[in-house]
Amino acid sequence: MDVAVNLKPSEDLSSVAWIGGIAGYLRLLDQTRLPSEVCYVDCRDVDSVWEAIHWLRVRGAPAIGIAAAYGVLLAYRRGKDMAETVQAFLAAADHLATSRPTAVNLFWALNRLKGAVDPTLGSPEALAERLLVEAKAIHDEDRKMCRQIGKLGADLIPDGSTLITHCNAGGLATSEYGTALSILFTCQDQGKSLKVFVDETRPLWQGARLTAFELSARGIPATVICDSMAAHVMQTQRVDAVVVGADRITARGDVANKIGTYGLALAARYHRIPFFVAAPKSTFDLALLDGREIPIEQRNPAEVLQPLGVSVAPKGISAYNPAFDVTPADLITAIVTERALIQPVNESTVRAALA
Amino acid sequence: MDVAVNLKPSEDLSSVAWIGGIAGYLRLLDQTRLPSEVCYVDCRDVDSVWEAIHWLRVRGAPAIGIAAAYGVLLAYRRGKDMAETVQAFLAAADHLATSRPTAVNLFWALNRLKGAVDPTLGSPEALAERLLVEAKAIHDEDRKMCRQIGKLGADLIPDGSTLITHCNAGGLATSEYGTALSILFTCQDQGKSLKVFVDETRPLWQGARLTAFELSARGIPATVICDSMAAHVMQTQRVDAVVVGADRITARGDVANKIGTYGLALAARYHRIPFFVAAPKSTFDLALLDGREIPIEQRNPAEVLQPLGVSVAPKGISAYNPAFDVTPADLITAIVTERALIQPVNESTVRAALA
Repeated sequence: MDVAVNLKPSEDLSSVAWIGGIAGYLRLLDQTRLPSEVCYVDCRDVDSVWEAIHWLRVRGAPAIGIAAAYGVLLAYRRGKDMAETVQAFLAAADHLATSRPTAVNLFWALNRLKGAVDPTLGSPEALAERLLVEAKAIHDEDRKMCRQIGKLGADLIPDGSTLITHCNAGGLATSEYGTALSILFTCQDQGKSLKVFVDETRPLWQGARLTAFELSARGIPATVICDSMAAHVMQTQRVDAVVVGADRITARGDVANKIGTYGLALAARYHRIPFFVAAPKSTFDLALLDGREIPIEQRNPAEVLQPLGVSVAPKGISAYNPAFDVTPADLITAIVTERALIQPVNESTVRAALA
Repeated sequence: MDVAVNLKPSEDLSSVAWIGGIAGYLRLLDQTRLPSEVCYVDCRDVDSVWEAIHWLRVRGAPAIGIAAAYGVLLAYRRGKDMAETVQAFLAAADHLATSRPTAVNLFWALNRLKGAVDPTLGSPEALAERLLVEAKAIHDEDRKMCRQIGKLGADLIPDGSTLITHCNAGGLATSEYGTALSILFTCQDQGKSLKVFVDETRPLWQGARLTAFELSARGIPATVICDSMAAHVMQTQRVDAVVVGADRITARGDVANKIGTYGLALAARYHRIPFFVAAPKSTFDLALLDGREIPIEQRNPAEVLQPLGVSVAPKGISAYNPAFDVTPADLITAIVTERALIQPVNESTVRAALA
C-alpha cells in the first residue's frame, strides 16, 4: 500500500474512488485515522485492497463490496495474455473474498465481478474495460440505492425525533449518503429536526469516530454515549426510534450487524421503541434462513484489552472479541431496502420484497 | 494528598486501611492506577479523602463509606477545644457527603460517624477515640458482611457455572471479599469451578482493570468483553447467572448500579438468565421507593470522548456521561444481603428483610 497522503477533503468525503482507466488505482479514505486526520491511501495492487479491507481502512458492508470490486481490476497487467488475465482476475476475486467473513456484500460484489469475467471478449484490455464498467455500475447503483433507502426510511421518522444509532452506516460505509444515516440525512433535507444519540461502538469507536463526524459535518445535533448507556437513555429520555445498518440479513430477516446491535435491539423492544434496519438488497443472503448460520468474524483480543494501544487489563487475561452479533427478525420493526419497506419482518415478507 | 508511594502489595490488597491511632492517617490503594501499578495514597486531611472519593481513587459503595468514615477522623487536631473538635468533625462529615452523589453507603457511614460525635465525652481525644472505634466498627462489619453475602450467594451458583459480572464489586470495592465477587470467591473456596465473563465497563474500565485483576489474582478464569458483547454472549453461549453489586437500592428493590447494569439486566431477562444483586443493608435507602428518585451522578464528558486521554470523536461534539443507571426490581431475580436472600424483590420482601 502506498504511503498515506494528506489531502484536503473534497466537499463530499468519498470513502472509495477509482482514479483513471483500466490501469488506474483505487483511492480509499483511511477510516482508521478519522476523525483526527483525513488521509487517503492509494491501492495499486490486490494485496493492498485486501489489507485495507482486513484492517478496516475501508469498512461498512456496501463500501467493502465496492472497494473489492475495484480491487479485482488491480490484477490487470499489460502484456499478459487472455488466459493469464482471466486467471488473475478470478484469483484476485477469490483472494479478496477472504479479507473479511461476515458482510455478504463483499461476496455479492465479487461474484458480480467474476460473472463479468468473460473469456470470449476480444482482448485482455476489453475484459478489463468490462470489469471496470461492472465495478462502476456497482458503485453507481450504491449511490442510488442509498438515496432510495433515505427516501423510504425518512417516512418512518417524524419531525422532532430523537434517535439512537450504532456503529457507522453512513456515507463512509457506502458511496455517498449511507444506509442508516441516509435516512437521517434525507430527514434533514426534508427540513425535519432531529437529535441523535450515537453509540461510541466499542471496541473500535466507529460511532464516536465516524458517525459523530458525519453528523457533525452536516450539522445534525449528535451526542456520543458509551454503548452501555443506550438502555438508560431509553429509560430516562424520549427516544423515538433506533436506526442501524446491517452486514448480512438472512431470508427470514435475522440481521448480522456490528457487535452491540443485538443488545440495543433488546433494550428497544423492552421500551417499545421502533427498531429500524437500513440495508440494500445486496446485504441479503437468501441462502441462509437462521441468523445463527452467519459466520461471525472474531477479531484480535488486543482491540478489547488494549484500547488505543493502552493496556487496561492485567497481563495474561483472556478477551473475546466478536465483531458482529445477530438480531433476530422478531426484534426488528422494519427493514428499509432501496426497493421496499419490509414490515413485519419474516421469511415471506423478505422473499416477497426481494423477488 | 501525599505523593503516591509504590509499595509491594500485601497478600490481600486492602483498598482502605487506617494507619495509627487517632492522629493516624488513611491509606488508600489508588484504584485509578490499577492494574498496571499497585500504588497507595496516604490521606492526612479531609480534603484529600474528598478528592480520593471524587476522583475514584477509592470507589465501590462500601469502600467509599469506610474511607469517608475514617476521613471524618482526619479533622482531628490536637490543641483544639471540645466545641471546635465537635464542629470540625461534623463539618468534615458534611463536606465528605458532597464527594459523590449516588452511593448511599457514603451517607450511611457519615451519619453513623455524626451519631458518634458525642459532645458530652470528657475530652477531644476521647471523642476522636470514639470516632475511630466507630469507623473501625464499620470497617469490621463490612468484612463480616462480605463473607456473609458470599455464603448466602454461593448457594445460588451451581458448580461449573458461567457468569457475567459488570464493573467491580470485589474486594477493591469493599474491605475484603467484596459483594458480588464475594459470591464468586466463596464458590471458589467451596471448590466450585466457575468461568466469568467480565464486562470491561466503559467509560472507566473498572471491569477490565479491577475485576479482571481480582479474578486473575485468585485464579478464577476470566474473559474480558466489551459491554456491548454481553447480550451476544448470552445468545451464543451458556450463561448461568449475572451477578452485580449496587450503589443504592430503594425500598421496593430498584437498584442503582454502574451504568450498563440496566442493559445487562434487560438482556438477562430476555434470555431467562437469573440476575443477582449483592449488596449489604447499608446500600438500601428506605426513604426512596421508586428508583427514578435516585440522583444519578453526571460525570465529565471527556471520560466518553477522550478515553485514556485520546480523542476518539470530532472536536466540539457533545457527550452524555451518567455514572449509574437504575434497574427496576422486577428485572432482579434476587438481592443477596448479609442477612437474607430477598426473593422475589418487592417492597414487602425488602422491608421484611431489613426490618
